Amino acid sequence: MTNKSYNFQLSENFIINHYLKKLNLNKTGTFNFENDAAYLNTKKNNKTVVTTDTIVENIDFFTQDPPESIAQKIMCSNLSDISAMGALPKTYTLNLSINSTIDQMWLKKFTNRLSKIQKDYNMYLLGGDISKSREISVTVTCFGESKLKNIIKQNNSAPEDDIWVTGYLGNSFLGCKILKNPKLKIEKKYFNKFKNFYLYPKPCMFGSKASKYISSAVDISDGFYGDLQKILNVKCGAKISKDSIPISVDLKKILRDNQKIIKFSELLSWGDDYELIFTSLKKNRKKLKSLAKKYKAKISLVGTIIKKNGIFDDSLKRIRNISSFDHFS
Amino acid sequence: MTNKSYNFQLSENFIINHYLKKLNLNKTGTFNFENDAAYLNTKKNNKTVVTTDTIVENIDFFTQDPPESIAQKIMCSNLSDISAMGALPKTYTLNLSINSTIDQMWLKKFTNRLSKIQKDYNMYLLGGDISKSREISVTVTCFGESKLKNIIKQNNSAPEDDIWVTGYLGNSFLGCKILKNPKLKIEKKYFNKFKNFYLYPKPCMFGSKASKYISSAVDISDGFYGDLQKILNVKCGAKISKDSIPISVDLKKILRDNQKIIKFSELLSWGDDYELIFTSLKKNRKKLKSLAKKYKAKISLVGTIIKKNGIFDDSLKRIRNISSFDHFS
Repeated sequence: MTNKSYNFQLSENFIINHYLKKLNLNKTGTFNFENDAAYLNTKKNNKTVVTTDTIVENIDFFTQDPPESIAQKIMCSNLSDISAMGALPKTYTLNLSINSTIDQMWLKKFTNRLSKIQKDYNMYLLGGDISKSREISVTVTCFGESKLKNIIKQNNSAPEDDIWVTGYLGNSFLGCKILKNPKLKIEKKYFNKFKNFYLYPKPCMFGSKASKYISSAVDISDGFYGDLQKILNVKCGAKISKDSIPISVDLKKILRDNQKIIKFSELLSWGDDYELIFTSLKKNRKKLKSLAKKYKAKISLVGTIIKKNGIFDDSLKRIRNISSFDHFS
Repeated sequence: MTNKSYNFQLSENFIINHYLKKLNLNKTGTFNFENDAAYLNTKKNNKTVVTTDTIVENIDFFTQDPPESIAQKIMCSNLSDISAMGALPKTYTLNLSINSTIDQMWLKKFTNRLSKIQKDYNMYLLGGDISKSREISVTVTCFGESKLKNIIKQNNSAPEDDIWVTGYLGNSFLGCKILKNPKLKIEKKYFNKFKNFYLYPKPCMFGSKASKYISSAVDISDGFYGDLQKILNVKCGAKISKDSIPISVDLKKILRDNQKIIKFSELLSWGDDYELIFTSLKKNRKKLKSLAKKYKAKISLVGTIIKKNGIFDDSLKRIRNISSFDHFS
């Protein structure tokens, strides 16, 4: 934890002592944030899996978003990457670039949410850095553990592999639409529910549970189609059964009520669901379903890897508009 | 390397393929940046030392600074932390938040400098993330290796320990002054020399060479006095022989010519020299000098750890104005 000083009503030392030290759980390698660096306690024969993400004000979140939402989003985007690698999260570093709009209440809410996430995923804060900046930006580098043989590659799928999706898709997309488009016809009971899917996404951590049976995986952070493309080898394509794509009953109803405003294709080209797309040999179906039941994960078989390059529907018609979207462009 | 797409003349994939892939040196754990995460190849019995720093436009660098300088600064601030831990750098992740002022030439210069630094310090790029933002900001998380017994703590010094400093201090401070104050009396031959100390700092990597003989260490990133305070236990203080503080002959001359503009105390309260302050038992003097000679490092004995809290001069007069400064406040 670098003690770089800066001219600001809240000094870096104050922030470290009042808000961050509670997050290190007294782990030796953190030096209680009194060092400029820390160390990882890596176990023998295990690999340390590393992922890092930055989220920036007005790009990945709105300035007025609750601090808890910002904490949830940056941790979620890292955790789902760790899961897609087949690893278990262990620790993380935090780089916080903040301006004078940040007060003690913001820091309290932000770090309390980090603390909750740490408990949920059995992690601790290893170190970090605090900087002054005009726009708020948060970087988290997350460290997970996995045996080398269990690490999942992103583009290791082969023709005939099943394509699976975890959870439900589109919920976060609708939540963002709700916040941006007041004309949407949404029953009051759904308003907060979907807003919260967008503000407080939950990563699917099924990757490490099923890594033995997974040939490739990716988290859905840029929309189903965009992320599906990442797991297709340049020589491979995908045949997707649109009806099998898991959309919740509530979302289906809202889509019917708002056909002119929301297109189904948009729903799948966009949105941070932080669920996983993964591929697996056909013979693993039973095993995967049993693991999903054991770990209370919802998994849906949505298609097959094919030799022909591109993404196609059931009748082998090429699906258009499948690029992943920039969220706030 | 997360492939989050964004609306920008240079796509993330373009930047990864054209500028970043050359930096991974085909190391297995990087997955050639085709995954959202990577893994570390940690050796048995060694600890992975982790440090992270963020630098932000208009705070830590000027917008018009050469991209090579920005690359040098972010790597330097991480490398000197790794050195202060007694570790050897191995790999790093890069989070680049950029706006539309960034063009291909900028990226080429920035990554060419990273490539040079990698060669100099035997490192490779492990992964990272690219984001769109209003202001440019760069985060590097650096990974080093050290045996647990050789890891240096920041505040492990004890009374009677010698206090040492590497290299020369104040050169970077003068370089920044030159850029900000056209009234300084500087001979032309010094102008570029000192400007380059500021724009292209070099980390002192003596930490891992001498870790066995070092009780505590810190890199000088916020000025000599501010960083010295970090290695003093709450129960300890320091007696500093001001005349022993290593100031180059050139800088001394410039200070004499500009007495009204630059104060000596300011020189030591400020500035990123990325040299090390370290403490050691008196009995290690000969060994340290011999190691310094072997590794062509300059080291100067500047004082002693004392029981009394605070920082004092030779005559035990307390030195005032020793807080570390914010560079651009």
